Amino acid sequence: MHNFILKIATKDSKGLIYKISKLIYEYDLNIIQNNEFVGGGEFFFRAVLEGHCDEKSFLNKLYEVLGANTKANLYERKKKDIIILATKETHCLGELLLKHYSKELFANIKAVISNYDELGVLVEKFNIPYHFLASENLSREAHEAKVLECLAGYELDYIVLAKYMRILTPEFVRHYENKIINIHHSFLPAFIGANPYKQAFERGVKIIGATAHFVNNALDEGPIIAQDILPINHEFTWQDMKKAGQNVEKFVLLKALDLVFEEKVFLQGNKTIVF
Amino acid sequence: MHNFILKIATKDSKGLIYKISKLIYEYDLNIIQNNEFVGGGEFFFRAVLEGHCDEKSFLNKLYEVLGANTKANLYERKKKDIIILATKETHCLGELLLKHYSKELFANIKAVISNYDELGVLVEKFNIPYHFLASENLSREAHEAKVLECLAGYELDYIVLAKYMRILTPEFVRHYENKIINIHHSFLPAFIGANPYKQAFERGVKIIGATAHFVNNALDEGPIIAQDILPINHEFTWQDMKKAGQNVEKFVLLKALDLVFEEKVFLQGNKTIVF
Amino acid sequence: MHNFILKIATKDSKGLIYKISKLIYEYDLNIIQNNEFVGGGEFFFRAVLEGHCDEKSFLNKLYEVLGANTKANLYERKKKDIIILATKETHCLGELLLKHYSKELFANIKAVISNYDELGVLVEKFNIPYHFLASENLSREAHEAKVLECLAGYELDYIVLAKYMRILTPEFVRHYENKIINIHHSFLPAFIGANPYKQAFERGVKIIGATAHFVNNALDEGPIIAQDILPINHEFTWQDMKKAGQNVEKFVLLKALDLVFEEKVFLQGNKTIVF
Amino acid sequence: MHNFILKIATKDSKGLIYKISKLIYEYDLNIIQNNEFVGGGEFFFRAVLEGHCDEKSFLNKLYEVLGANTKANLYERKKKDIIILATKETHCLGELLLKHYSKELFANIKAVISNYDELGVLVEKFNIPYHFLASENLSREAHEAKVLECLAGYELDYIVLAKYMRILTPEFVRHYENKIINIHHSFLPAFIGANPYKQAFERGVKIIGATAHFVNNALDEGPIIAQDILPINHEFTWQDMKKAGQNVEKFVLLKALDLVFEEKVFLQGNKTIVF
Repeated sequence: MHNFILKIATKDSKGLIYKISKLIYEYDLNIIQNNEFVGGGEFFFRAVLEGHCDEKSFLNKLYEVLGANTKANLYERKKKDIIILATKETHCLGELLLKHYSKELFANIKAVISNYDELGVLVEKFNIPYHFLASENLSREAHEAKVLECLAGYELDYIVLAKYMRILTPEFVRHYENKIINIHHSFLPAFIGANPYKQAFERGVKIIGATAHFVNNALDEGPIIAQDILPINHEFTWQDMKKAGQNVEKFVLLKALDLVFEEKVFLQGNKTIVF
Repeated sequence: MHNFILKIATKDSKGLIYKISKLIYEYDLNIIQNNEFVGGGEFFFRAVLEGHCDEKSFLNKLYEVLGANTKANLYERKKKDIIILATKETHCLGELLLKHYSKELFANIKAVISNYDELGVLVEKFNIPYHFLASENLSREAHEAKVLECLAGYELDYIVLAKYMRILTPEFVRHYENKIINIHHSFLPAFIGANPYKQAFERGVKIIGATAHFVNNALDEGPIIAQDILPINHEFTWQDMKKAGQNVEKFVLLKALDLVFEEKVFLQGNKTIVF
Repeated sequence: MHNFILKIATKDSKGLIYKISKLIYEYDLNIIQNNEFVGGGEFFFRAVLEGHCDEKSFLNKLYEVLGANTKANLYERKKKDIIILATKETHCLGELLLKHYSKELFANIKAVISNYDELGVLVEKFNIPYHFLASENLSREAHEAKVLECLAGYELDYIVLAKYMRILTPEFVRHYENKIINIHHSFLPAFIGANPYKQAFERGVKIIGATAHFVNNALDEGPIIAQDILPINHEFTWQDMKKAGQNVEKFVLLKALDLVFEEKVFLQGNKTIVF
Repeated sequence: MHNFILKIATKDSKGLIYKISKLIYEYDLNIIQNNEFVGGGEFFFRAVLEGHCDEKSFLNKLYEVLGANTKANLYERKKKDIIILATKETHCLGELLLKHYSKELFANIKAVISNYDELGVLVEKFNIPYHFLASENLSREAHEAKVLECLAGYELDYIVLAKYMRILTPEFVRHYENKIINIHHSFLPAFIGANPYKQAFERGVKIIGATAHFVNNALDEGPIIAQDILPINHEFTWQDMKKAGQNVEKFVLLKALDLVFEEKVFLQGNKTIVF
């Protein structure tokens, strides 16, 4: 017996659940869990199925039934392969390493890449390959070429930016479309760009936050996967905010990764459906 | 075109969603929204359906397909009729009256019953019948007889205890099984019984809360529908907690009522499934 | 015995608490509660004092001790006089009316002014003067002239914008500097301006919020007093957000008003110190 | 220049702040931050002071001024020495190790003691002494004797129970009175004792939580330092609760330790004052 995850996105019409569940029934699969959502004329469906299944045959039948404009995937449920990009901060990276160590991250960390040398000691404690690819004195493009070359050596499902403090070029992003997940240290769309905690301090907000999102070509404007917040007060300097915010950052990043790795996230334009 | 709410609880087995969605398809109904949950060997299903439908015929077919042990309901979506029981406090009652006035409560308040006289002035501002049924010098049974007699004059779907500070007898509860919703001013199961804010003060907790639940015959132990909390600190006297807690109480009560009135709540033993 | 609230803002220097507490001691006043904060080179102090006191003499002495650049106030603790401006929505206004009715608002509502007629029925239930000052077919200035004339008939401490859906001119704001409190239906600085819930829907955020702030001449950019949030998901239309957000709006507005009316808020540039 | 932390607890009376701040002024110390609280007839005071100071002389003067029943401490602000006791789970321990590694924990971890062998690999990655003191086949007293002997080899300020799944005897607790901090995986006083997540599942609560507290001789009933919660729903098995709860547990434990290590916590009977 295996667990499969079925994801479908298609134009909404009457009878979709009937048609899909009929096919599942005919393939003698058991629905362990399922979710649907209809929005903007589109129908989104995710199910965890149990049983034995010829995936190709199932998907072919599904396209026959739902039409060629349907987007569907049937995955055997298994850990994702990821590469982490980080710069200097240890809180998000360390959290990922620990959850990986305790087998609570639904992913294999294949390697960590950093544009600084500092994180190597920590990463190597956990016996994970570490690539220090210095960005100093290099153009953005030249540095990215080194990173892309390094990435090319790995099979990967997702790239996780665990406080990677560099802006990616459109070329880089296009290369890994919908495969890069970033944690931004503000409650987006508030405080886009550099130093959000300083911006928050200047504005005098009473709550700060963090946002995990897919990366697209508009800075900090990709589809949001998860957000959370932390109440603060006038006693917080921006350094206090930064320290306190780290707990929210790592919590939100891990929450988003759990959702993505379990295939619970759909993209709809610049937004996400999260089951 | 009408909106119907279909609720089904039955023993879990393979193909249930297929069988149900097939029937819905055959009756030419459109599924606007649906949720399923499987737990403890039971299957729970709720759907909002759009179309025209002979409800009796549909349910008969459904029982044929799913078997006689199934519990199913098909409601036309419409406001519930409720009676509110209260004592002296105005925060929950006032919230209900206001939401009713602004047509944001999915219910008709048929009347308010209180064992004190104080609330009449407020209730009558909103042109809702008010029954002052004094409990003083009466046995619990004698007082409840008066309340039951008053209730008998109304058709009602639910009784809402909006800070009704009296314990109901098992007879009363049996009379309105699964139809009485209470708001308790603590984060159950902490601080059952009288004066939960005093208990919270004595214990020195850093968070207080409120719990909305169906009433059964064990004090404050009925199925929980909704809970929420409020951070506090050592500066709070129990009177401060009481004042601050009122906002949580009314928020939680209204949240629970929204869920119940939209038929989003299932009972499973002493627990709730909330879609 | 009376309760006084002492508020001091002055340039920070060594010995301030000693000098202030010495004076309080010499005037035979008891400190019930006090808070201090030093930030940006400024010292902020608030104390609740108990006893008998010649306020003028105390303040004179205080200025002698702390220097002429000090800003200090000594208030007898008492309810503020307020005027509410609203447009059509009842949730914030109704909450204020109810808390006023139950004597839990630390203010006297002297009147309600609206540019629409709808709210009169509700306000008059609570025997509070209602002024319908139509804005239709009037220039902003002409309408504000009518509002200012109406306000001039009242002694007031604060103007509360309880979902008043009009932008105030700089002239109006200057007239009541630091005396106007607004509730904005977003988590500022996200979604400034019109229709924040629609903006939130378009952006696909996972949390919405509300912000209470003093009004200055930059739209939605005045000093923030209080904020709170509500988790949402992809199932929320912007209308759902609006409905759910109302509870946060009224909660945040009331929280801010409690703080302001108890003289717990200091202004420092465009930010607030909240004790 | 040094930073000192002054903590005072004494019987409340008029003029305390004046007397204390006078002494601070006479010793030419600058108050960076201070907090006071009066409750139950007691006065609590904490200040961060900057300057040079003969601590003994200062405290002697202070006792002269405030009387012999006063409890006062003047600490140079510095990292605490701690020993961690754990059993098998890595989430709290790992968080402590990481924060220690990144120098964000205001403490030196002198050693980790466990009654199981599993944690040694992780602890030793961080070059911290690990003591595996098996409890199997030993009486509680015999095992504790081994732990006490091991502890005796270290100078320590606090013992942190980072998911140490054994109940301590009164003798052990007496030995380290007010020096042992525990994280309990429920929202106390709900779900005292074993398997709180199972208890929470059985009761059908909609929110779970965690509590950090000083350990005394009543199980899970010591003074609460910090609490936090996590919303859940009917889809959570108790294993899901356990997994999700780990993030709250480590967050609450770290929050409590930050407060204790910065000397921000006072004990008052079975409660805490937290500045």
